[in-house]
Amino acid sequence: MNAVNKLKLKNDEGKFICVGLDTDLEKIPLHLKYSENPILEFNKKIIEATSEYAAAYKINFAFYEKLGSKGFDILFQTKEFIPKDILVIADAKRGDIGNTSRHYADSVFNYFRFDSITVNPYMGEDSVKPFLDYENKLIFILALTSNPGADDFEKLQLKNGSYLFQRVIEKVNSWNIKSNCAIVFGATKLQELQENIYAFGNLPVLLPGVGAQGGSIEEVMKLFIRNKKLDLLINISRGIIYKDNTDNFAPAAKKEIISLNEKINKLLSE
Amino acid sequence: MNAVNKLKLKNDEGKFICVGLDTDLEKIPLHLKYSENPILEFNKKIIEATSEYAAAYKINFAFYEKLGSKGFDILFQTKEFIPKDILVIADAKRGDIGNTSRHYADSVFNYFRFDSITVNPYMGEDSVKPFLDYENKLIFILALTSNPGADDFEKLQLKNGSYLFQRVIEKVNSWNIKSNCAIVFGATKLQELQENIYAFGNLPVLLPGVGAQGGSIEEVMKLFIRNKKLDLLINISRGIIYKDNTDNFAPAAKKEIISLNEKINKLLSE
Repeated sequence: MNAVNKLKLKNDEGKFICVGLDTDLEKIPLHLKYSENPILEFNKKIIEATSEYAAAYKINFAFYEKLGSKGFDILFQTKEFIPKDILVIADAKRGDIGNTSRHYADSVFNYFRFDSITVNPYMGEDSVKPFLDYENKLIFILALTSNPGADDFEKLQLKNGSYLFQRVIEKVNSWNIKSNCAIVFGATKLQELQENIYAFGNLPVLLPGVGAQGGSIEEVMKLFIRNKKLDLLINISRGIIYKDNTDNFAPAAKKEIISLNEKINKLLSE
Repeated sequence: MNAVNKLKLKNDEGKFICVGLDTDLEKIPLHLKYSENPILEFNKKIIEATSEYAAAYKINFAFYEKLGSKGFDILFQTKEFIPKDILVIADAKRGDIGNTSRHYADSVFNYFRFDSITVNPYMGEDSVKPFLDYENKLIFILALTSNPGADDFEKLQLKNGSYLFQRVIEKVNSWNIKSNCAIVFGATKLQELQENIYAFGNLPVLLPGVGAQGGSIEEVMKLFIRNKKLDLLINISRGIIYKDNTDNFAPAAKKEIISLNEKINKLLSE
């Protein structure tokens, strides 16, 4: 099944939560630290507990790369453990000149077999194109990110009056020939979300920043419902996977995602 | 020795060439393909042949990541093989929210022990800051890149009349509190280089795009000499490592870098 359809099926079932596997050895429950592969064990238990309720998983490469090649193996094994009908996003923020991006795409799509990747648009079209060449994948391009630094460049006003992130969204729409483009938009930027959602067109949206970063799931969801745009993912990492740091972490994660789904479905039915 | 000093010492010796190890199994000489670890063998031979003449090495992560964890091992072993007095750049184009960038920095500086990294500025200050916290390292931040896509966003004109890449350079100067900032500027953008070199201040410059991408080493070098700015690296990847694709590849690479150094030193003495 292609990546866009995986997302669509889950969204149609009323699932919008993307579970972010930002798994850090320092933060996982003590009892797991004595197992052979604590991070993989932790991820497996989180996935088992949440996969029935998740719309997608997002694996943050940084947390695995810091362990070197062993981390890359854990990343691979984690990805393989996720049920095949669920979209899995390589949160890698890649992007380079065309010839190099081609190898990054090869890594994420052919070696790791992810459905989707996050890409940084700074270097322009030829840096993004090698990812877009994979028509069954879903390419999330950074528009306006959830962090404070988004003000430094993404929110700069251009000569024609629009903002850099708006120009990115425009470009992404023009690149969307194979219907495999999507955008990243910070859930912390509610006002900009409100002012720009009309410009998203058919681009699915990944919204990080809920929870630890301060975004509100209710506000974001209401906004999308009001705009009848229901192709989206609200990412939650720490708020789910570290909901509880005892050996009850997996049931606690399950309880949390069920409660988030209920909250969302209540908003949907209002 | 800290990274800035490594670069300075090589520059003072009249060395400005950064050898880009964009090593691709499909492009290395046939006879090496039957060795146990062809890419590592190739890299070792290139390093042995060129280290006396190189100002730095740049390892392009994409070419290793596509091999998964094995690629990460080759990357690590390649890096370890480079003499310790030579700057080694992780060409990884990383950048994410602060909490994630911190892990990328941990990977590149603590696990892989690189001297330096390339960073994408799109997400702003807090995405770059965790790299800058390593005061003995050298952080090359993308300003104007060498590829055609540089026109899409980097060269957008802002409301105040300046271009996005100029704003990036301004910001990088303001972030340079620990004297560990540097910029990436495409050797293919000679006019912009000429018009902006005054704004580089004390930031060392990494110039990709010579050779396969069309930049001219003579033109670039003349411009820097004219501006009395001699803290720079001209990257050459394919033009050195694939100069010859027979079993003579290492002597050919050596001959090429010596010839490039001579060309540069002739310009310096004029």
